[in-house]
Amino acid sequence: MDQNKTPGEKPGHPPAQATLHEVRTAENSAAYLLPKLQTMKESNPHLKLLDVGSGSGTISVSFAKLIPEGHVTGVDVNPNILPRARAVAEMAGVQNIEFQQGNINKLPFADETFDITFCHQVLIHIGTPWHALHEMLRVTKRGGIVATREGDYETESIWPELPELDKFHKLMAGLMSAGGGAPSAGRRLLYWGLRAGAERNQITVSYSTTSYHTLNDRKICCKFHCSTLLLAIAVMALIVIFSLAQGLCDQLRGGSLREKALKFGLGTENDFEEMAKAWEEWAERDDAILAMLQGEILIQK
Amino acid sequence: MDQNKTPGEKPGHPPAQATLHEVRTAENSAAYLLPKLQTMKESNPHLKLLDVGSGSGTISVSFAKLIPEGHVTGVDVNPNILPRARAVAEMAGVQNIEFQQGNINKLPFADETFDITFCHQVLIHIGTPWHALHEMLRVTKRGGIVATREGDYETESIWPELPELDKFHKLMAGLMSAGGGAPSAGRRLLYWGLRAGAERNQITVSYSTTSYHTLNDRKICCKFHCSTLLLAIAVMALIVIFSLAQGLCDQLRGGSLREKALKFGLGTENDFEEMAKAWEEWAERDDAILAMLQGEILIQK
Repeated sequence: MDQNKTPGEKPGHPPAQATLHEVRTAENSAAYLLPKLQTMKESNPHLKLLDVGSGSGTISVSFAKLIPEGHVTGVDVNPNILPRARAVAEMAGVQNIEFQQGNINKLPFADETFDITFCHQVLIHIGTPWHALHEMLRVTKRGGIVATREGDYETESIWPELPELDKFHKLMAGLMSAGGGAPSAGRRLLYWGLRAGAERNQITVSYSTTSYHTLNDRKICCKFHCSTLLLAIAVMALIVIFSLAQGLCDQLRGGSLREKALKFGLGTENDFEEMAKAWEEWAERDDAILAMLQGEILIQK
Repeated sequence: MDQNKTPGEKPGHPPAQATLHEVRTAENSAAYLLPKLQTMKESNPHLKLLDVGSGSGTISVSFAKLIPEGHVTGVDVNPNILPRARAVAEMAGVQNIEFQQGNINKLPFADETFDITFCHQVLIHIGTPWHALHEMLRVTKRGGIVATREGDYETESIWPELPELDKFHKLMAGLMSAGGGAPSAGRRLLYWGLRAGAERNQITVSYSTTSYHTLNDRKICCKFHCSTLLLAIAVMALIVIFSLAQGLCDQLRGGSLREKALKFGLGTENDFEEMAKAWEEWAERDDAILAMLQGEILIQK
């Protein structure tokens, strides 16, 4: 992405949104898929790739750059994000791409349309992910690939072990479950793939990590891990808008996350105040780290 | 390692031991260190490397191959493992290496002896790992590197989620804690490095994973994850000898692990029988996976 013209600088779009969702690229979020994509591209440069749950489109756009003679389609259940995704593509000067509204459980495409069908941090939020994978397999050509990477939120590893951060973790997991998702999605991907109808020998499993432990900019570190935490409930249609470390604290104190959590009986006003203070303490500490496992599968159709 | 002449085939040494501990190499267990090692080697091919807790020496030997003009010293608190380590080196045809007895808390070397001081899955088992890191820093030259990689056992991710496997996990963590170790070592490495006296800007943090999800040989998969679990208590001087999936089950039913666990009040005979059955069930399932985070730090002295 052009460092001098990030999506966040576009008028009408807050920088925080860009730094939260739009740091994602094929390189940092789909490394497990790229060797296979390169091999497929060598025999067919005109690959058709579908990114399901494409959001603001940064991963889709980086895929489009990787297959300049191919074509990328991004779909998202939320039509309001589509203009943003198109703007991201335009800013990047990418033209072999289109975005449209679509639901992962009923994709608006004919059978065997795409060479690669991809989603990232989507199955973790839905109740019947094997149906979604079955639908992704349906729209994938024979000889093509279905690929997904999902966090295993139950492996989240935080230091220092402040009790309020543990409460925050439970709150997030509770919200995710309440919305029909599975916080431990990463470990379930193989099971979901089999339940979607794939044979075991069609599925390649791998794991990677996300982690936050940078030295020089603790606010940015905090912002990143807050994004990890809050992205977990993005598909539940919670408003996830905040910036830097302070952004999370403001949201905990007064925002929609609190209202949602109170509705589910997951916390009190005092709980949120304490969690906000804990994040502030975390952000100040030299020994602060956050890490999590990411599960990944490739299904060879 | 020569595939036609594995350590396990050496007379008097059971294959299971070899396949459990001796699959470890610098490449699969110290990848986070290798770019730095290569850079250091370019300016000084005569690097001196210390491997603390070298065990049967497979990592030490692979380091020795990477620095053929340098020298590797392996130390282990257990003198009985030293002949095995020397045999592994001899079988590999590596001569720039020596093994000796030594305690990580009082290393038998002068200050500033080594360019690289390394340990792997050692700090997780000891009560004052910051003292050990301080001692490792002492024997490291200025401009040298201290490197360690430790599991975060609390991030262990298993599917299917059989209740008895969860009990097994708690048993292992309990034994590790009872022995003075910290099951969540991986997340604590930065903190321990700081407590050892390093400055934050001397420390580079990274994470990787170990995972087991192979298709074709479920017994080998099971053996590998059993080794991960049981290595957690190796430094507690439990007898960790078993082979293939059945090996673990045999040990749970009759071995020293059971006696140790019973002593600590961590399980009953019936519990162990149930856990053994659960591992057998796990080994039979197509959707079985096990994954875990590994924490890593490099300290630039």
